[in-house]
Amino acid sequence: MSPPACPFCAIVAGEAKAAMIFEQEAVVGFLDARPVFPGHVLVVPRDHHETLADLPEDVVPTLFEAARQVAIAMPEALGADGAFVAVNDKVSQSVPHVHVHVVPRRRKDGLRGFFWPRQRYGSHDEMDEIARLLRDELTGRFTPKPSSRPVP
Amino acid sequence: MSPPACPFCAIVAGEAKAAMIFEQEAVVGFLDARPVFPGHVLVVPRDHHETLADLPEDVVPTLFEAARQVAIAMPEALGADGAFVAVNDKVSQSVPHVHVHVVPRRRKDGLRGFFWPRQRYGSHDEMDEIARLLRDELTGRFTPKPSSRPVP
Repeated sequence: MSPPACPFCAIVAGEAKAAMIFEQEAVVGFLDARPVFPGHVLVVPRDHHETLADLPEDVVPTLFEAARQVAIAMPEALGADGAFVAVNDKVSQSVPHVHVHVVPRRRKDGLRGFFWPRQRYGSHDEMDEIARLLRDELTGRFTPKPSSRPVP
Repeated sequence: MSPPACPFCAIVAGEAKAAMIFEQEAVVGFLDARPVFPGHVLVVPRDHHETLADLPEDVVPTLFEAARQVAIAMPEALGADGAFVAVNDKVSQSVPHVHVHVVPRRRKDGLRGFFWPRQRYGSHDEMDEIARLLRDELTGRFTPKPSSRPVP
């Protein structure tokens, strides 16, 4: 289950060093050794799963509830103003073992630029087509089914 | 429960237009009208909760499982190589109604720079102190308790 070269499996197994933050039955958290900001935590499932698609559904609540609790703790623990919770799935994913970044944020910390520049859709048709593609792909994944509201 | 000025409550109520992607009992997804990349979805709880701390714990699994399914759908639906799943909690949170961004990613799409530059901790003591602060704050939030592994 644990590829010999996976650095997160090594941390979970106690074979590699990390500043552990918490340890649960299915999920652990530790400091990223190369943080975006000090206090940057990685929340990872103990078992080796490469991508979000590979993650067993029963691990999802534990993984994200732990990430949420770490985010909530950051203002009290570190004097942060908020937090950034993020998963890079496949693209920009430096370690192929699912991990949730929880980064303490402060106002004017310089990260604000990330979600800019935003775009606008070129046309209503483009937006409509993209919504349809996503809806179709999600059909069957959800109960109830994807929205049938018309694209405005 | 729904502040008159909340744009996401208005979308949930059907009073404001949005390109809906899916609708569940507790959570809905729709296209961000100003996407980072076309196909950028926002997954939001129907009920108005401002921050991750305000979110009832029983909504967390549904919210993040929906976000995960949207991320999984993006390669098939949109030809994406992966996805970026993110929550801005309080800082950089443009709408005070919890929302999970799910952004389709492609290799060399220009977003790779986000998680750089990384830092290094100035000293072992600094890392140790930060880990201790987070552990202490998390004590009592988790069962079992935060890690007692020594900081390496």
